Amino acid sequence: MIIVMKPDAAKKDVEHVIKTIRDMKLRPHISRGKERTIIGAIGDERNLANIPLTTFAGVEKVLPILSPYKVVSREFKKENTLIRINGETIGGKRVVIMAGPCSIEGRDMLLSIGKKVKSAGASILRGGAFKPRTSPYSFQGMGKEGLELLKEAKHLLHMPVVTEIMDTRDIDLIADYTDLFQVGARNMQNFSLLKELGSTNKPILLKRGLSATIKELLMSAEYIASKGNEKIILCERGIRTFETETRNTLDLNAIPVIKKLTHLPVIVDPSHGTGRRDIVATMSMAAIAAGADGIIVEVHEHPDKALSDGEQSLTPDEFKQMVKAIGRIAHAIGRTI
Amino acid sequence: MIIVMKPDAAKKDVEHVIKTIRDMKLRPHISRGKERTIIGAIGDERNLANIPLTTFAGVEKVLPILSPYKVVSREFKKENTLIRINGETIGGKRVVIMAGPCSIEGRDMLLSIGKKVKSAGASILRGGAFKPRTSPYSFQGMGKEGLELLKEAKHLLHMPVVTEIMDTRDIDLIADYTDLFQVGARNMQNFSLLKELGSTNKPILLKRGLSATIKELLMSAEYIASKGNEKIILCERGIRTFETETRNTLDLNAIPVIKKLTHLPVIVDPSHGTGRRDIVATMSMAAIAAGADGIIVEVHEHPDKALSDGEQSLTPDEFKQMVKAIGRIAHAIGRTI
Amino acid sequence: MIIVMKPDAAKKDVEHVIKTIRDMKLRPHISRGKERTIIGAIGDERNLANIPLTTFAGVEKVLPILSPYKVVSREFKKENTLIRINGETIGGKRVVIMAGPCSIEGRDMLLSIGKKVKSAGASILRGGAFKPRTSPYSFQGMGKEGLELLKEAKHLLHMPVVTEIMDTRDIDLIADYTDLFQVGARNMQNFSLLKELGSTNKPILLKRGLSATIKELLMSAEYIASKGNEKIILCERGIRTFETETRNTLDLNAIPVIKKLTHLPVIVDPSHGTGRRDIVATMSMAAIAAGADGIIVEVHEHPDKALSDGEQSLTPDEFKQMVKAIGRIAHAIGRTI
Amino acid sequence: MIIVMKPDAAKKDVEHVIKTIRDMKLRPHISRGKERTIIGAIGDERNLANIPLTTFAGVEKVLPILSPYKVVSREFKKENTLIRINGETIGGKRVVIMAGPCSIEGRDMLLSIGKKVKSAGASILRGGAFKPRTSPYSFQGMGKEGLELLKEAKHLLHMPVVTEIMDTRDIDLIADYTDLFQVGARNMQNFSLLKELGSTNKPILLKRGLSATIKELLMSAEYIASKGNEKIILCERGIRTFETETRNTLDLNAIPVIKKLTHLPVIVDPSHGTGRRDIVATMSMAAIAAGADGIIVEVHEHPDKALSDGEQSLTPDEFKQMVKAIGRIAHAIGRTI
Repeated sequence: MIIVMKPDAAKKDVEHVIKTIRDMKLRPHISRGKERTIIGAIGDERNLANIPLTTFAGVEKVLPILSPYKVVSREFKKENTLIRINGETIGGKRVVIMAGPCSIEGRDMLLSIGKKVKSAGASILRGGAFKPRTSPYSFQGMGKEGLELLKEAKHLLHMPVVTEIMDTRDIDLIADYTDLFQVGARNMQNFSLLKELGSTNKPILLKRGLSATIKELLMSAEYIASKGNEKIILCERGIRTFETETRNTLDLNAIPVIKKLTHLPVIVDPSHGTGRRDIVATMSMAAIAAGADGIIVEVHEHPDKALSDGEQSLTPDEFKQMVKAIGRIAHAIGRTI
Repeated sequence: MIIVMKPDAAKKDVEHVIKTIRDMKLRPHISRGKERTIIGAIGDERNLANIPLTTFAGVEKVLPILSPYKVVSREFKKENTLIRINGETIGGKRVVIMAGPCSIEGRDMLLSIGKKVKSAGASILRGGAFKPRTSPYSFQGMGKEGLELLKEAKHLLHMPVVTEIMDTRDIDLIADYTDLFQVGARNMQNFSLLKELGSTNKPILLKRGLSATIKELLMSAEYIASKGNEKIILCERGIRTFETETRNTLDLNAIPVIKKLTHLPVIVDPSHGTGRRDIVATMSMAAIAAGADGIIVEVHEHPDKALSDGEQSLTPDEFKQMVKAIGRIAHAIGRTI
Repeated sequence: MIIVMKPDAAKKDVEHVIKTIRDMKLRPHISRGKERTIIGAIGDERNLANIPLTTFAGVEKVLPILSPYKVVSREFKKENTLIRINGETIGGKRVVIMAGPCSIEGRDMLLSIGKKVKSAGASILRGGAFKPRTSPYSFQGMGKEGLELLKEAKHLLHMPVVTEIMDTRDIDLIADYTDLFQVGARNMQNFSLLKELGSTNKPILLKRGLSATIKELLMSAEYIASKGNEKIILCERGIRTFETETRNTLDLNAIPVIKKLTHLPVIVDPSHGTGRRDIVATMSMAAIAAGADGIIVEVHEHPDKALSDGEQSLTPDEFKQMVKAIGRIAHAIGRTI
Repeated sequence: MIIVMKPDAAKKDVEHVIKTIRDMKLRPHISRGKERTIIGAIGDERNLANIPLTTFAGVEKVLPILSPYKVVSREFKKENTLIRINGETIGGKRVVIMAGPCSIEGRDMLLSIGKKVKSAGASILRGGAFKPRTSPYSFQGMGKEGLELLKEAKHLLHMPVVTEIMDTRDIDLIADYTDLFQVGARNMQNFSLLKELGSTNKPILLKRGLSATIKELLMSAEYIASKGNEKIILCERGIRTFETETRNTLDLNAIPVIKKLTHLPVIVDPSHGTGRRDIVATMSMAAIAAGADGIIVEVHEHPDKALSDGEQSLTPDEFKQMVKAIGRIAHAIGRTI
């Protein structure tokens, strides 16, 4: 950590900073220029995480040197982490496709979509039972009944399943039904939830928040990992910007950046990332070209009758075409689907 | 709601939209131009909330006419809502000042700050016991022990208290200790939490999310209100933008805009809104000039030793000066403190 | 255009709106609901562009139906526009690669880079002579001397060249030296410049502004096209968001969206779009997968000695590898390079 | 400047950085930690502005210590700069009000509005002759004829006038007619224009770009000042964010922040900043409370007939009320109007 003192900082201000650095078991390193005195704090910066150095008298600014996350960092672990879910591996050479309806709406609907996405190439079935909806007047999901249907689909179709968890109270319940907990964008900084999930041993699909920086996404992963569960799959799903042609701005730059910063796998959700079914397939192809380890997409047989997110759901036929296109891109970069 | 058809929409596409509008008990109104056919849906648009009209064949775009929130809207209730908390009234002529430490760090510390902010003019004491922190390695709050101290302070100082709730499991616990539940920015769309709080009868301080639009803030208020609890105080606390000189961009435009859209009171948090103690007082004055019903600020006797948010905490002396300055602004616009 | 009246709009307010619509040669269409009266204006909305309808008494909001641009819209012209530059075609099956140094720094440097990018697969040479720099103390470009070198390179290497125009006074000068005018992001809404360029007959490379919506980019293209010059290539080069890991957020969603809205070709600038040479190649591949008609990238033999933008310049070797990778992606989607 | 080396940087990488620092006449200062070697460059960082240190082998990141602007910085000059325009002073105790129509539409209209805003308290008359409009089909201003009218109004009303300059070619022309050049948001980084204006000796009103950081605004001011013209008034006029209730997000935090960073005066434009006439007065009051040295607002006698920006123009009566309200706020903070 670098502490830059103000031009008019008093000698005792400098000494107070130095003493604090020593108290926290770091080594101070002082460099006096004509305009500024600069103090380096050598050692584990995380010791200083709780010290509000910017409020110290005479301090102008504080520049961190090390990343605030550790366990999830690429520096901590060089090789890619592979996440295994019932025989599927995420983070390896093979690109993984997760697909299914936004919301589970009934037995026939779920089984029918599940069968179709599987035969088209999906290896994990998604489906929401508890739904975060902006409006209290929108469909909120089938709840436990939806989970039962998901479990049945899992067994009938021999596919691992993923569903969203929104409430710490539901962890045990949902754990019984899902192979992969999904943490939605709105809960990326629901720290109570992250801590509890860190104490389970099921894999977690952690979505980036609407206005979360990549660093914050990694800090949220660190919350989970610091409790012992390192089976985390990150997911880019669009950030909020001023542009209104798309529901969100899918940030594909995040893929290569995240890959450099962490050893965890990262997938892309082009359905929420764009909010437009007419560009979902194109952006999936771009995501794979950008190095994503997989995608998660919404599929519905009748998007115009979907109880949620119909505007961004593909039909099974569109999905099938998309998987083929993705396959060609994967092949072009030396991966498989 | 207005449905704009594509230039090449088929006759049956138009008829399908019309039928759907009728099925949902609204009245269709068709207008055929040279370039587009446009269909109005007259009646309660909320009936259409679950219909993904944009995915219908032949539909180009859908333009909502009415706001998606109802109970909290100014149209629904013309007069300002007044929230009463142990003798204090929020939303009236008097500007309300909430102050206290970011985190409760101990008994002496809390009582000492509480006494000072009260004598300077604060009428509600704030203090965090459960803290949402970006890093798992940062101080996470004193938890239940902190709540006990808060209760003691409340009785000794005769001040209502406010503290943050982050987890549905803590509602009963915190309800025993607080007069006002605070929902933090990161939980503004924690819908499980909002629903549960809507079933209590304690007032709620609902903070705007980092990237929440004003409409989304009102939708979250609607979540609470639709469950029966209309005692909601909204709080502007800064949004995320590209500017880095301030931690967030305190959006004071939101104050007059919110006042027009809803009957609920709205306060401002300049501490989180700016992240800089050197401009907190100035922005508090601006907030009152913009029509805020109050402010909530962080105060610490030794900001450089604060366990959280020291960089944005005022000293008791700075707070005292600020209250005086706010008083002059309030007076200038015909209000009191 | 749809005009939504306030619930309490007076009869004369409604009549005033209707009269204005008729005065502007559009046809009004009234629909009276229980909560609102809604007036449609049928005909060419552009007639109403100068009427501030939102300020009319009794008007709540105004919703445009048609796009505000015309000549550049896909609706106006269905087939893709092909731009021909000295034998090169942009917007066809072949993906076009433009490459070269950020700034022209000297004769040997320009020729050497030019030769290398050409042999690696670039077909258009870029090089800045007039440079927009954030700081007045940074290198501002070689000016006319740089243009002379660019012309020499063009003839020696048989490559069309592109360079930036920043000032209306330089149009004639630069027209003598370049095959393609580049309008930089900071000048996307320099309307004086756009109008003048619209009166030339040279192709224009129009970059999206840092905070320009896609609609605004198309409006700026319309400025040029409305003066008679329809040879416009659009360029996505990153938008400004809250994320700081990348210099800008390259918005690849814009590619398929722009392709739907306009018949003009669109290319991507991953150098400025990301500001990081370590992810330029990856994002170029993603850009092609997203449907871009080409890319423009910065190449420098010694990025650490570049007088501008070294941090985002590829070495000739890195560029060569990138072109191969792009070729594989292009092939996978049925295009060539 | 601080250069952080990668954990695996070679000895020769470190030496190359050190040599470069010395070559640029700064003094290197090395600090070797367990995880990183960190090199300080002591001296005038601006010497390093053209060196792309981030591209050097072994370099992880580069952290600037000093601000990149100099002449306009508060560090360079402690006292507030006062700008004098025909007897008016900007930046002193008195808050200055600039008002007038968005566009000059005719003689009577300009004189009538001018008379009214003057009698209500405005001391500088604004009026656009060359208008930057998003659409080429919108009214583009009266041009030279408008300037003539502005000059006449200036003499008849004894008020200094301000009008926008958009093109380097118009500088001499406009200089003959205006007392204060306005540089609009879209031209904040039109560096050709800034340089030319820096060579005049007329005051400049420099508006913040839609997505410009405060630092970039100050760099643009530095462009002007570095050419010799230090008579610069900065203007906050709203930034682009995700919020759509307001046309832009007026960023009042910028006022106290700018005041700390520079000695130049700063005013606020609530008309463009909000785009909504119903909140212009409120935000003007907040701007003064935040410490602005003045405001610039649009006034029109018939906003619903304005040829531009009617939706954000006040009527003369509304303006008069606003000036009174501003006066009360100014008085409350020890200033006058």
